[in-house]
Amino acid sequence: MTIFFVTGNKEKFREANALLGEFDVEQVDVDLPELQGEPEEIVKEKARLAARKTGKTVFVEDTSLCFNALNNLPGPYVKAFVEKIGVKGLYELASKYEDKSAYALACIGYCEPGKEPLVFKGRVNGRIVSPRGDTRFFWDQIFIPEGHNKAFSEMSVEEKNKISHRKLAFEEFGKWLEKNKK
Amino acid sequence: MTIFFVTGNKEKFREANALLGEFDVEQVDVDLPELQGEPEEIVKEKARLAARKTGKTVFVEDTSLCFNALNNLPGPYVKAFVEKIGVKGLYELASKYEDKSAYALACIGYCEPGKEPLVFKGRVNGRIVSPRGDTRFFWDQIFIPEGHNKAFSEMSVEEKNKISHRKLAFEEFGKWLEKNKK
Repeated sequence: MTIFFVTGNKEKFREANALLGEFDVEQVDVDLPELQGEPEEIVKEKARLAARKTGKTVFVEDTSLCFNALNNLPGPYVKAFVEKIGVKGLYELASKYEDKSAYALACIGYCEPGKEPLVFKGRVNGRIVSPRGDTRFFWDQIFIPEGHNKAFSEMSVEEKNKISHRKLAFEEFGKWLEKNKK
Repeated sequence: MTIFFVTGNKEKFREANALLGEFDVEQVDVDLPELQGEPEEIVKEKARLAARKTGKTVFVEDTSLCFNALNNLPGPYVKAFVEKIGVKGLYELASKYEDKSAYALACIGYCEPGKEPLVFKGRVNGRIVSPRGDTRFFWDQIFIPEGHNKAFSEMSVEEKNKISHRKLAFEEFGKWLEKNKK
């Protein structure tokens, strides 16, 4: 069985391929709307749309950055925030609140054509700090995961990929595939 | 010609009907996704989807609340912000920045089946204040329009509807209809 990862991001595809190594994963680029809502609902709906459009078994992945002081916002709108006020502006926003704790959430929506989508999640708690390290991935610079003293941006890709929210979500997804699709 | 206003909100429908008095406006309830993006793009896409789904000439209306200190955010995500942190939380967010100026933006997306959607806008500048007045409409309580000393929530419906961003957008829309559809 081939599963199609709906993404325009080749880096994410390579990562998924490595993490789901035993399964046949291919990349497909589908024009999907960016939706508002709860992170779980967004990936569900996007997976449903992608399965309908392509007629294939697909999955999508979305990442949220959730500030506890803002009751989980910006959450799925973090991309818009980075575009509008930058990573520095996002840090400044967090810095104005006493509670600087946050969590990174990766949600994978999986859908077989005509079926109800499933959601797999990975969550990493942490805190927001002033921008540091590499600028390769947009808000990596301001997020230090719990139990670490480096921001994601200060870790090597391998180091980050061992502990990241995306890694955890793919693990959950992989376990499910292993159990249900082998 | 009948134009269909896609909304579940009867109050908005009554207002539209009054403002577009000479035209035959009917209400239609279509299940549309909440989209992310620039306010203009969101209503364009929603109008396009609604025209496609119904096969009718339709319009949709969306309102954004834009903080200048946050480069126009929360903008189209203001509904999510009110749901997550409340009107009080939204005020507190604004109060942390020196620049408390903001604007209310109404966007109308109009679409005839198979054609490109059009957008009509109404904008009212103002500033964010601590919650006051009536609670009838979600962020009316914290927005004082320029040249006034009362929040929208402290005005009568008639008073607000004379100067509101939605009124201005409907005026633009009405003028265009008058010129092109009579």
